[in-house]
Amino acid sequence: MEHGGNIIKFSMEKGYKPFEILDYSSNISPLGVPEKLWDILSEANNWLSVYPDPDYNALRTALTVYSGADTEKIVPGNGAAQIIHDTIRFINPNKTMLVVPTFSEYEKALKTTNSQVEYFLNHQENGFTTCHFSLMELLDETYDLLILCNPNNPTGSVITREVMLQVLKHCSRIGCHVMIDEAFMDFLINENLYSVMPLINDWNNLIVVRAFTKIFGIPGLRLGYGVYGNINIAEEYRQKMIPWSVNVYAEALKGFINSKDAFNYIFRVKEMVRAEKNQMYNEIMQMEAFRVFPSEANFLLIKIEEPTRFSVGELWNKLMEKKILVRDCSNFRGMPEGFFRIAIKKETENQCLIDSLKSINNAILYGRQR
Amino acid sequence: MEHGGNIIKFSMEKGYKPFEILDYSSNISPLGVPEKLWDILSEANNWLSVYPDPDYNALRTALTVYSGADTEKIVPGNGAAQIIHDTIRFINPNKTMLVVPTFSEYEKALKTTNSQVEYFLNHQENGFTTCHFSLMELLDETYDLLILCNPNNPTGSVITREVMLQVLKHCSRIGCHVMIDEAFMDFLINENLYSVMPLINDWNNLIVVRAFTKIFGIPGLRLGYGVYGNINIAEEYRQKMIPWSVNVYAEALKGFINSKDAFNYIFRVKEMVRAEKNQMYNEIMQMEAFRVFPSEANFLLIKIEEPTRFSVGELWNKLMEKKILVRDCSNFRGMPEGFFRIAIKKETENQCLIDSLKSINNAILYGRQR
Repeated sequence: MEHGGNIIKFSMEKGYKPFEILDYSSNISPLGVPEKLWDILSEANNWLSVYPDPDYNALRTALTVYSGADTEKIVPGNGAAQIIHDTIRFINPNKTMLVVPTFSEYEKALKTTNSQVEYFLNHQENGFTTCHFSLMELLDETYDLLILCNPNNPTGSVITREVMLQVLKHCSRIGCHVMIDEAFMDFLINENLYSVMPLINDWNNLIVVRAFTKIFGIPGLRLGYGVYGNINIAEEYRQKMIPWSVNVYAEALKGFINSKDAFNYIFRVKEMVRAEKNQMYNEIMQMEAFRVFPSEANFLLIKIEEPTRFSVGELWNKLMEKKILVRDCSNFRGMPEGFFRIAIKKETENQCLIDSLKSINNAILYGRQR
Repeated sequence: MEHGGNIIKFSMEKGYKPFEILDYSSNISPLGVPEKLWDILSEANNWLSVYPDPDYNALRTALTVYSGADTEKIVPGNGAAQIIHDTIRFINPNKTMLVVPTFSEYEKALKTTNSQVEYFLNHQENGFTTCHFSLMELLDETYDLLILCNPNNPTGSVITREVMLQVLKHCSRIGCHVMIDEAFMDFLINENLYSVMPLINDWNNLIVVRAFTKIFGIPGLRLGYGVYGNINIAEEYRQKMIPWSVNVYAEALKGFINSKDAFNYIFRVKEMVRAEKNQMYNEIMQMEAFRVFPSEANFLLIKIEEPTRFSVGELWNKLMEKKILVRDCSNFRGMPEGFFRIAIKKETENQCLIDSLKSINNAILYGRQR
């Protein structure tokens, strides 16, 4: 259970059909695959028997329009996972600062290097927010890489661009790369307050990782990209990467991401996520057995108030009986006991989860009767 | 022009439409995408919004049926390219023996490690065959990786399983991994004489790389796999690799590769390649300006007999004028001057290439008149 979204494994284990499971464990768009994308994918069939352009020029041009970053600074890859792993490997840091709890792939990638890894722990008492003063105090010349996920998975906490700017300044002085994973940034209503993409031309040490997996609900397609403040690094990484990293269907997103359809879809997702998240947040706030944390992203982190009385494993099983899959957060480094994460889905589905949580809440509070 | 198959780049440069170009530079099936595969890919759409099984259990089971190797020994990846790069990186050899001229990605991957690389040169005088006695004489305890491509790209030369067995024995004694890239093995009529896959349970130091790109003509899809004699290595690599390496459409090949349709398709490809290759070989044999090398694979290596009189660059340009793209082999390490490579395609297309080569042959021999 290293990542969320593994409905294939759990459906096999439980004898369910995969699509019977209400998957609250993977944080993807509640609206499903954008309608127009099916046409784009169908057209891509015409290119199946051709090697993709190894330089992905047309794709990178489309990513420039989407992100505002120079084409020469963009490196497309086989999902954000490849960008994260390759970037960490190519930087080959001596000492890395990882702000935790966070997405586990950074640490997995660091293990394939010889980097010393230090952990900056965000605490539940502070809503898992990052005190950038404390962080910068710890970051000295011995560090060459700082990794941040913004908004952070699984906590939903964010760091503003203004604060990031201070961190970037400090890290630039000490010669430290800053890799910021913005995989969930598209879901934010006020993205412009948080994304560091507009800073990409000002900071040589900045690396931004983005992906389309979550916002378009297409984890099977695999398209992510890295944007590098240092143009030479981008060029070097494109050369070092495996050829034809991006398959022909993922590459075809170049014909979609800047369309009116994509724009409207993203707008509708943002609106739905905001409304449904508020609704769910308020509902769960009423449940005394749970504590829900504020989140700017398309998911909510929830704590069982007394995990010694009722564990997150018990909760996971109870929900799985109802064919609802949530993300047990026990295996996130630095995460205290009793946490789980839920995605924001459509209203009817959310009501189903809320009802189940209510019933568990009552069971916990009133002697476990159902 | 690092690899063949870059019709997008050349069509842009020349102002052609990509599909106007007769692509003899990429060595893929002449029969196009198997008809039945379109249904499989269409069904895969249903899984686009689900994260692929990170363990790829169903895919690996299908690969077991296809290859005969244990499921636990199989590691699927984003094309053979990922398997090659990751395997070399994870082995992290101190000293590697590379038999050249060969596919350039081995060397590119080795450059991301600190490995010392020695080159065992196959000579045109011997038809680019490998003298395994000389090779084994050079391989001592200082080596920890030997890389072979069989059949070899771009020479088409092969090493029999019997000879490979001796090499494996020797390398096992000296503690050296042997990575054999069998990307073109499916095209061989007598695969059973050459593939080392049946030896996978006997040799801990054996690694076999395969892919479906070439045999099914689907370079846009990206599915390759590694098979590791050492089950612990396979397990370790699966853990270290990036998650969700194989996209949902490539994963869907699990429903095709062991079907009657796939079997019949491969049979027809083998037959067509054999017949057309013989035909082309005999035709080019008649042209005094060229020398063609025997090939067991689905491509032919050709030499311009006097490249000082007429260079391979001139030939490439002449053919490109006729919208025919061949693979200039100048950038293969260890390849002498004047070589180019052509794929085997369908009869009418091949006749078109042969006519063009005839005309160039006449121009070279008889004072360049056309």
